[in-house]
This record gives sequence, C-alpha cells and structure tokens, in this order.
Amino acid sequence: MKNQNVRVAIVGASGYSGEELVRLLLDHPHVELTAVTSRQQAGQTLAQVFPKFASRPGARTLRFTEPNSELIAKQAEVVFLALPHGVAAEYAVPLLDIGCRVIDLSADFRLRSADIYQEFYAHDHPAPDLLAKAVYGLPEVYRDQIKDAQLIASPGCYPTSILLPTIPLLKSGLIKPTGIIADSMSGVSGAGRKAELDYLFCECNESVRPYGVPKHRHLSEIEEQLGFAANAKVTIQFTPHLIPVNRGILTTLYLAPEKHFSTDDEAAALGVQITECFKSAYGNEPFVRLLEGKALPDTKNVVGTNCIEIAWRLDPRTGRLVVMSAEDNVTKGASGQAVQSMNIACGFPETAGLI
Amino acid sequence: MKNQNVRVAIVGASGYSGEELVRLLLDHPHVELTAVTSRQQAGQTLAQVFPKFASRPGARTLRFTEPNSELIAKQAEVVFLALPHGVAAEYAVPLLDIGCRVIDLSADFRLRSADIYQEFYAHDHPAPDLLAKAVYGLPEVYRDQIKDAQLIASPGCYPTSILLPTIPLLKSGLIKPTGIIADSMSGVSGAGRKAELDYLFCECNESVRPYGVPKHRHLSEIEEQLGFAANAKVTIQFTPHLIPVNRGILTTLYLAPEKHFSTDDEAAALGVQITECFKSAYGNEPFVRLLEGKALPDTKNVVGTNCIEIAWRLDPRTGRLVVMSAEDNVTKGASGQAVQSMNIACGFPETAGLI
Amino acid sequence: MKNQNVRVAIVGASGYSGEELVRLLLDHPHVELTAVTSRQQAGQTLAQVFPKFASRPGARTLRFTEPNSELIAKQAEVVFLALPHGVAAEYAVPLLDIGCRVIDLSADFRLRSADIYQEFYAHDHPAPDLLAKAVYGLPEVYRDQIKDAQLIASPGCYPTSILLPTIPLLKSGLIKPTGIIADSMSGVSGAGRKAELDYLFCECNESVRPYGVPKHRHLSEIEEQLGFAANAKVTIQFTPHLIPVNRGILTTLYLAPEKHFSTDDEAAALGVQITECFKSAYGNEPFVRLLEGKALPDTKNVVGTNCIEIAWRLDPRTGRLVVMSAEDNVTKGASGQAVQSMNIACGFPETAGLI
Amino acid sequence: MKNQNVRVAIVGASGYSGEELVRLLLDHPHVELTAVTSRQQAGQTLAQVFPKFASRPGARTLRFTEPNSELIAKQAEVVFLALPHGVAAEYAVPLLDIGCRVIDLSADFRLRSADIYQEFYAHDHPAPDLLAKAVYGLPEVYRDQIKDAQLIASPGCYPTSILLPTIPLLKSGLIKPTGIIADSMSGVSGAGRKAELDYLFCECNESVRPYGVPKHRHLSEIEEQLGFAANAKVTIQFTPHLIPVNRGILTTLYLAPEKHFSTDDEAAALGVQITECFKSAYGNEPFVRLLEGKALPDTKNVVGTNCIEIAWRLDPRTGRLVVMSAEDNVTKGASGQAVQSMNIACGFPETAGLI
Repeated sequence: MKNQNVRVAIVGASGYSGEELVRLLLDHPHVELTAVTSRQQAGQTLAQVFPKFASRPGARTLRFTEPNSELIAKQAEVVFLALPHGVAAEYAVPLLDIGCRVIDLSADFRLRSADIYQEFYAHDHPAPDLLAKAVYGLPEVYRDQIKDAQLIASPGCYPTSILLPTIPLLKSGLIKPTGIIADSMSGVSGAGRKAELDYLFCECNESVRPYGVPKHRHLSEIEEQLGFAANAKVTIQFTPHLIPVNRGILTTLYLAPEKHFSTDDEAAALGVQITECFKSAYGNEPFVRLLEGKALPDTKNVVGTNCIEIAWRLDPRTGRLVVMSAEDNVTKGASGQAVQSMNIACGFPETAGLI
Repeated sequence: MKNQNVRVAIVGASGYSGEELVRLLLDHPHVELTAVTSRQQAGQTLAQVFPKFASRPGARTLRFTEPNSELIAKQAEVVFLALPHGVAAEYAVPLLDIGCRVIDLSADFRLRSADIYQEFYAHDHPAPDLLAKAVYGLPEVYRDQIKDAQLIASPGCYPTSILLPTIPLLKSGLIKPTGIIADSMSGVSGAGRKAELDYLFCECNESVRPYGVPKHRHLSEIEEQLGFAANAKVTIQFTPHLIPVNRGILTTLYLAPEKHFSTDDEAAALGVQITECFKSAYGNEPFVRLLEGKALPDTKNVVGTNCIEIAWRLDPRTGRLVVMSAEDNVTKGASGQAVQSMNIACGFPETAGLI
Repeated sequence: MKNQNVRVAIVGASGYSGEELVRLLLDHPHVELTAVTSRQQAGQTLAQVFPKFASRPGARTLRFTEPNSELIAKQAEVVFLALPHGVAAEYAVPLLDIGCRVIDLSADFRLRSADIYQEFYAHDHPAPDLLAKAVYGLPEVYRDQIKDAQLIASPGCYPTSILLPTIPLLKSGLIKPTGIIADSMSGVSGAGRKAELDYLFCECNESVRPYGVPKHRHLSEIEEQLGFAANAKVTIQFTPHLIPVNRGILTTLYLAPEKHFSTDDEAAALGVQITECFKSAYGNEPFVRLLEGKALPDTKNVVGTNCIEIAWRLDPRTGRLVVMSAEDNVTKGASGQAVQSMNIACGFPETAGLI
Repeated sequence: MKNQNVRVAIVGASGYSGEELVRLLLDHPHVELTAVTSRQQAGQTLAQVFPKFASRPGARTLRFTEPNSELIAKQAEVVFLALPHGVAAEYAVPLLDIGCRVIDLSADFRLRSADIYQEFYAHDHPAPDLLAKAVYGLPEVYRDQIKDAQLIASPGCYPTSILLPTIPLLKSGLIKPTGIIADSMSGVSGAGRKAELDYLFCECNESVRPYGVPKHRHLSEIEEQLGFAANAKVTIQFTPHLIPVNRGILTTLYLAPEKHFSTDDEAAALGVQITECFKSAYGNEPFVRLLEGKALPDTKNVVGTNCIEIAWRLDPRTGRLVVMSAEDNVTKGASGQAVQSMNIACGFPETAGLI
C-alpha cells in the first residue's frame, strides 16, 4: 500500500537534479513523493513544470510550494535537498532538528574539514558542527555508515566518476597515491538549469572546452576521499571539459602502478591483480559494470541509469595504468546515487526504483 | 590571371579532407583546381557531389575522374593526396617521378623510420626510399625545409594539436621529455566519410567514448617528432576520445616542468619563462593564437579556420604544467595545414587562401 | 513467477526497433524474453551487443541466434518481427501456421489492399491471403480487434503521429476529408541502424532536410486508415523531414474544419466541439496526452515513453485547424505500441511494462 | 586602399546578427569597420568578445563603445542596426537626420502600415513617417529601389525563406494567392543571444517544438510582401518550429497552382512553366540556387553562406505544388542579406565580401 510508504520531499525540485529525483521517486515502489518546493514554480503542478511527467500518477495534483522547513517536516520523513551550496545547510539544520532524514545533493556536507570548505567555496561553512555527523553517500564505499545516517552528503558528479575507479586501487596498494591525473568530460546538465549565456544551445553545440583549470571545487572532496583510501594526503590533477551532450561524464584516469612493468608479460601479471582488485570491490555491486575484453566505456550505455562503466588498460610502453569510467552525471552522479543511499538508509532493497 | 596560376589536383577528393581541400583551393587566389579524383564519384561534377560548392566558379564544370597518375601529372604541378595510408604511396611514387610536387595527407611519409611504420601500420612501407626525402609538413617547425620540398607529409590531426604546444617547451628545456600525457577529444569527421555503424548519427550523438587505448597509430609520428625536439627518445601516453561535434580537436596536455615549483611566486616566475618561450616560438605565427588572461581554448573559436588556440596553466599544488589546445581537425589538422605548406613550397604568401 | 509468464521472441533484434523491444520486454512483468535473432550477431549475448542492457537480468546469458521459424515457435508463444518489409512476411507465414501470435513491426500487413502494397512497395505482396486476417495495431482505434488477433500489424512511426490526432476529427465530421496536409520531422533512428553515408553523424548533425517528397511509402497506410475513419477515399499531402535528434517525431497537421469560422467567437464555439471530440476519444487513454492552455508538443517530453502529446489551434485568420503531435518514433511509433498491442492481445494490463 | 573604403558601424554588435555582420565586414574588400557598439561589452575589443575573430586584422584594436548616434555618425557613412524592434527606430531617426545610410535588421521599418505594426508588435510605431521612405531589403525583388535607399529594412529570416520561393510564382499567376501554408524549422540562433531557460543547451538538444502558433510576428511582413506580389490581400498559414541546430532554416511551402493537374503528363506540362518562372526570376541571381534532378534542399549546404536553395515538386495525387527552401537564418536570413543590400546601395559588386 502506498499509504504505508515512506513519505519524501524534494527541496529545490526545479533544477536538473531535482527533476531527476522527481522522475525516480514518482516511480519508486516504497516511497510517496509528498512535497516538492521551488520559489519560482510555487503554485504550479508537477505536470505543468515538467510536462514529461504528466502521465505519472500524482503529477497533476502535486503542486510546488515555497520551501518551508517546518511544513516540509510535517509532510515527509526523508528530505532531499537539491539546492546550491551554502543554501542547503540552511535547510538541513532545522530539518535534522525536527527529526527528518536529510539527503543533501549539494557540497555542504561532503567534507570533514570546514577549513577546506572555506578554501574551495570561499565562504565560512554555515554549520561546521554537522560535518562530523554527515556520511559521504557513496554506497559502494560507505554502505555500512549510510545504514544509520541521518545526514547523507551525496557526492558530486565528477567525484563519483573518479572515486569509484580509484579507491579500490589505492586501498589495495596497487597504485601510488601520487601523480594521479583525472581528465573528465561532462554533459551540459552538469552546469545546472541556469539562464546564463555560456550554456545557451548555440554556445555549447559544436564546441568543446576545458574550464575550472587547475583548481575546480570538486577537488576538495575528491582529494579528501582519496586520502582516506590511501591513508595519506593525496593531491591530484583534474581537468573538467564541457561537451555538447545533455547527460554523461566520461573520465580518463592516469595512474602509476606501484609495481614497475615494461613487457607484455609483466603487464599481464599485473593485470591479473587489477582484475582481482576490481572484482573483489565491485563484483557484486549492482550499479558498477566492469567491462571485459575490448569494451571501453561509452556514456550512451549508462545515460538514464544508475550504472557506472569501468574499463582499464596497462600500457607497457609508459608503465602507466589508464582507467576509464562513464556515468550519467544526473543519475549515478547525483540523484540516482542519492536514491540509492535512501534505499540503504531506509532498509529498502538497494536497487528499488533504480533498475 | 587565373591562367598563370599554379595548377593543382586532389586525388581522393570525396572524403572530408578532400572536401575541405576543394573548399580552400576553389577560393585560393594563386592556384587553379584542375582535377579531382574519386573512384565512386567519377563522372559527377563538384556541384553534384558537394552541393554546398555549387555557387563557386568552376564547381558546375569540374568533374571527378578515376585516379590516373599520368593524366593527373599532365593536369597539375601540385598534387594533394587525400587517400588511405598505403594507397597514398602508390600514387606518390609515379607522380614524383614525373616531377609533380606531392602533398600527402596520409600517414605514409610522416615517419623517418620504415620499421616504426611497420610496427604501427601493420604492413611493410610501400616506398621506404622516399622517407628520407619527405618533409614533415608542420610549417611552424619545418618552414625552411618545406620551401624546397617535393614531397610533403602533412601531419595528422591529433599530432598537430599535441606537437605545436609541446615542441617549443621541449626545445627550450623547460619541460622534461618524460611522463608526457595527451588527452584528446575529436569530432566525428576525424573518422572519415565511411559507411560504418560506429559513426552513424545515433551511435555518436549523446555519446562520448575513448578509443584506440593505449596505442593509437598517431603515437608513432608524435613520438618521433617530440624526440627530434627533445633530442632524446620520447614515449608519451595518449588517449583519444570521440565526441559529438562535426569538427574540432581539444587536447589537454599534462607536462612536468624541469624546474620544481610549489608556491604562487615560483609559479609566476616560471610562468614568465613559459610565456617567453611561446611568444618566441609563435608570437609572429599567423595561425597560432596564444590565449591571454582567463581565456581557455574552445573548438568553436577555431572551427572552419586554420588557427590553433593554445593556453596553459601552472598548478603549484601538483607542480605540473597543463597546456590546452584547440584546432579544427579538418583544417589546421589536415587540409588547411596542407594548403599552408603548399603556399610555402610554391612561394605564395603563407596565409593565401586561408584567412 | 517468471515461469508462468508468456514467452516472447524478437526476430531481427539488432536494429533500433529490435533494441527498443529488448529494453521493454526485459523489464516487462508478464513476459519472459526467450529468444532474440540476428544473422550478424548470432552467438553474441544481449550484453555484448547492447552494453547498455548488461545489468539487466538475463542479458548476460541470452544469446542471439540465427532466425529459424520452427525453433522460434518452440521457444515463444508471441513473436515480434522487427524485419524489413518483404522479409517479415516470410517469417510470419510459418509462425502463424505453427500457432504463434505474431506482432509485425514492418509494413507487410498494415494494408488491406495487396494492390496498394504493390504500388508503394514495388513488389508483389508475399502473402496476400493474410492481409484480411491482420489487425492494424493502433490500440486507441482498434483495441477490440487486437484482443483476439493472431496477426497484428503494428503501425509506422509517421502514421501513428498523423492518425491519432486526425481520426477522431474525421469520425466526428468536424473536419473535411480533403486537403489534409501533414508536415513531419523525424529523428535519425527512423532511418534504422544501417551503414549508409546519408546517416553518418557528420551528414545529419547541423542539417535539416526533407526527403521522400511527394510520395513517401507511409502514405499508403495513412490514407487507408484515414479513409476508414472518413468513410471516403482520402488523399493527403505528406512531407517528412530529417532532423538531428536520435528519437522523436513532431507532426504538424493542417486541417479544414467543416464549419466556417472567421472570428474569435466562432473559433471559441468550434473549439468547444474539438475539445469535446478529443476528450471523448482520448480522455481515458493512458498514452495520449491532450495538452491544455498554452502548452505545445515537444519531443523531449515524450522521448523514451509510449506517450503522444497532442495540441491544436484554430486560426480565425485562415479558417484552418492546426494540430500538432509529438511522439517517440521508436516507442509509441514502433516498439512501445507493439508491446501495448501485445498487452491487449494477451490480456495483460494495457500499460504493463510501459509506464 | 582601405583608406578610401566606406566606413561602416554596427550598432548592437554583440548578438548573433551583430557577430555575423562583424565576420562579413571585417573581410569585406570595400569597407572599413570603424565602430561596434554594445552596452554590455563597451570597452572590450572585438577579439575579447569574439575570440574566433582574434586573428583578423583590426580585431585586437577595435573596441566596443556605448551606442551614441552623434558619435557613430562621425565614424561611419553606413550604419547597421542589429537591435530589438522598437529600439532600432530610436537610433535610425537621428542617424538618418545626420545623413548616414541606415540598414536596419530589426522589424521596425519592414512594413508600410503602422497599423499592422501596432497589431503585430503591440506598441505604436515609433517613427511612422519613415515607413514610406524605407525600402524592403530583399535584393532579388527590390534591387532597383535599394540602389538609392537611405533606409533599408532588411527582411526577417523566416520571411526571406518564404518570400523568395513564392513571389515569382505569385507574380506570374502560376499559383493562387489563397491557401498558402508555410511550415518552417529554424536553428536556435534565431532566438538571439538571450539568457533564457528555453534556449539552454539541455532544453533544445534532443527536442523539436513548434512555437508562435498560429500568429507569429513575421506574418505581418510576409503577408504584406506576398500581397504586393499578388496584387491582392494575402493571408497565409505559418508554423515555425525550433530544431537543435545552430543555424539554418528549412521551409516547406504548400501551394495551389491555378491550373488543375492530376496526371503525370499534366504535371510535366505545368512543371515546364514553373521551371521557366524560377529560371526567369533567379537564373542569374548569384545567391539563389535552383536545385535540379532529385536534389532537395539541405541546410548544411547553405550554412555560412548567403545562398538560398530552392526545389519544388508537383504532386498529381493532390494537385498541389510543394516548394522547399533552405538558407542560413543568420546570413541570407539576416546579416548576409543586409551586406548584399549595402553592396547594392554603395555601388559595390553585389557579391563583394559574400562569396
């Protein structure tokens, strides 16, 4: 019965992450979407704002409201925050106080260190006390902590595409924690639904460009998490690029194996260990796809899903390990992963509403 | 008078490089396009095969013919070969014998070493004697040799995007010749006009994917040329990606400066040297645009032109130099550069027909 | 239990319609996909041919086979044919004989008249006896006949986008059966997964073009069906255009109301009747969305779904009715509609596996 | 000598039409671009605002200024206005008074009737006295009047794509002036460089949608001009659609020949007359391409050029004439056509700077 389902709300539901949450939660078998907020869209139904959902049950009746923490807390046990950083914390504090479970898609609670937050986001952290309580919502790494978490900080899109391929290799000691390079290409939805000239169709179509070089904000959470995996301070090189697709991130990682290799035989031997490492980490993960044979990641194989594809190649010419991943930046890179965390925290099957 | 112009022919004019040569040569002030060949299109006029050129003078009268070296040699002093590797050499040999100047856009004469050719192209070189006579048609580097060249091997699209930013840094000793990584994204025209499923609209649109990892054929000429610049054997890591644009290559290079730096001041000091190095190399080059201030390369700024944009950033966090370049793979990366070489070899102004 | 589910097969599963059938049937709650055939892909698993489905249960074990009617008939009660016209009939005949239910996505059984088939498809109909037995699989119009049908001819993509908006207006007598014009734009998947130069990325991207003017093959089924609705011979003008999207058809229809109107008041009065007509026809249809207010159809609102959006405007300046529709050519225009018909024929809920 | 060239200015040079004017005028052999204005970009160089022009002579020195009619009049003999309607007239009045030749790309002077302007643009015409003095800048129709014009009202993009194919047919009496339908698809640049959500990459990509149905503003000038050609009041049906390309308009016109035809022979006889009509009108026009044989218009053949492609088909099944055209909305549909008019008015070769 829908009546016995967990009630969920989305604060800031009119952006691309919010829209994807709406898509996933409207169909979710164990929840009822009871509230969606948006200052600009208040009063409109879901069907009016997102015509694509007009045929879904509830879309013609559920209306956007102004965001109000007290009201939301009456309507929902679980609240997703799809808000800009800085703003998200303002809602998280009262919602947690009233007892809601909060799943935040912003950067506000992803870091342990308020200092690093200040360095990368250029303002003081609005609620530093909560940083220690928040769990980084990367289920493949923090599943156990997510189970009891009241405050889940869902990872950024680039970090997800970089961390999942890299963390097992660091933990196993197969690669060095130094010299890591991540080169990423993202679809335009990653910039959000913002009326800015840079993201007009004619400015993005037939265009490829790097941006945020060399110190993109996402570096803060990437390096903190890699540091936990390596048990050492990790500093990486990261270059994001904007490409003309709606959705999808392709990341190519350049890594240095601890073990030197320069022949095909040495590469084969090391390859066995890498295969082992990835299978051990992700062999049973429903949303991680380890590619085999000649297959390489392609964003079109993951768009609209919560899956990440991972492939790797050892290059005996350079002694380097090249790892490539593909994900949907809005799903596994944002809203899908947030729902995955909710499933874990609420005791639902982890894949509920996601496959 | 057009009558006194140099007569040029294009062998293999129906592909994307051939089409771009047609575009550039039809408008060129100092040449007359007298012959275009294509087995499939023989008998058709330029206007029929390329409706976009139908309004250009000559496009309704010039007809494609079957390729025939003797005939071509009667029609033209300069012959562009826009053919697959292996096939190009078959035409180059007789055309050179008869006395034509040959500008080859294939890989056949780009290497000095027939062994490396065999390693990367998987067949014996069809005319190894000619390798020593060929000049690598990168005008910014080999302008003097191009002046007298009878056989010009025009560089590949990826190599151009990598070599131009890297060679001055290597020659000046500012960067190490080791550990170079080149991460590139190319538009689909780079795959040629071939009826293959992989390049259908629906297979490329809304998709990004790496390919040819880790040993793409273009590595052979890239490493040979970088080796000449460094006066040492150079081995690099290179990852090409296919992105859904018609034209354009964006390359991001990860380089290790010889000089250690880890503070903003040290970066600023090194930056002065890098600026100096690039200005000294390219300050007067008509087709190299050194970006200033916050500007970063964007393929939409170079598509349809023979220009390459270059920008760089020093990262004191990692001690690395990140250099980015953008070019049109069909123009500066292929046909435009070939015309630039022709201009030099024929004594025309270098920018004739290209600006 | 999956064991008690209806077993279904797809003959010709490697094209775009076949791929979409795979997507829908893998997730369908009441069927089990037991066989997929493809000459080129025989021996490969679903996961190998379509990496995007690799995480679905069964995708790593189900393998493509050579098409063989007897074998298929042992594996499945319901068989989808996603084959070229002419070829489909060759499989339909034996499969029907053995007792399978056949849902054909080709044009082979869409017409009642073998003569019209010959006129439009340029070869004799391969099984004219079956034409009378086939039901045109447009559920909103032929739901009752589909219930008992052994042979369902699923409509073409353009016909669906034209027939659904037009049939109720013709049946109600609100519009004249003469002078109908349909102007359509289709995504490139409509051309099928065929290795032809015309459908390469670089030939379709940044391009719009009409084709098949003035006598496209789909006219045959469109006019036959409109004739049934009007109870009169109907001849229409139809112009398809190819646009650079993967999926989606937008059709704009120019219709002549029986009732003359030239003022806003007259338009309003007629508008009430048109609203009534559409609501009566489609008010309860799960897959037809009648837009209200200022909303106009947009393919991005229906792509990936089995829905069609319909909106209309009366123009008192011209006395004409303009009706616009948007659908996904691969879903409602092909495979989704075929599954909808299967649901009806097999007694499943009509929306099963489709919402 | 550039010194003796005509000096030209662009008021409102930062939008897409302005940018295209910059592109064309920087290379024009008979003019010197002396001023570009933009409130937002004042102080910036052309190279800073449009990096793609950075290699053109003058782009690094010419700076945007605040628009000021008196100053502009000192800098230029010819002034292009690329401003919103309503605003353009404010600049035209003083510039004409001082003696500049004004070429206006807005809608302000395209109509003869101030009443129709008020009806379609919802405000009183700001300078009704000038309407009678303005010449409609469609060179293929008004070449003689353009020669002496001080005020040229350059046509809209949709109107150009509709008028050029239709006017000769109306003038010759081959088609009826009633029942004309124009169905158009436009690239997103047609919406201008405006920071609005509707034109974000993710809102336009993978989307097709009609808009402005049934009374788009461009109808006013289309119908006025068709009325002049037909010597009768003309009312047409016009439906614009937005498609995901940067540039290009494809228009499909449904026309009723005066002469009834229903057989192939009758169609052939009428076809001779239509061919004659188009050849007589446009056989010598440098920018009109009458397609032959099986060729149909394709925007990719005209993008970046000032050409319009026209093809037609007679349909004996319906007795209708279908005419299709393709143009670049920013070039022939706006800035290229404005330069063509300037060439005529200034006595330059008509194709100067355009081929």
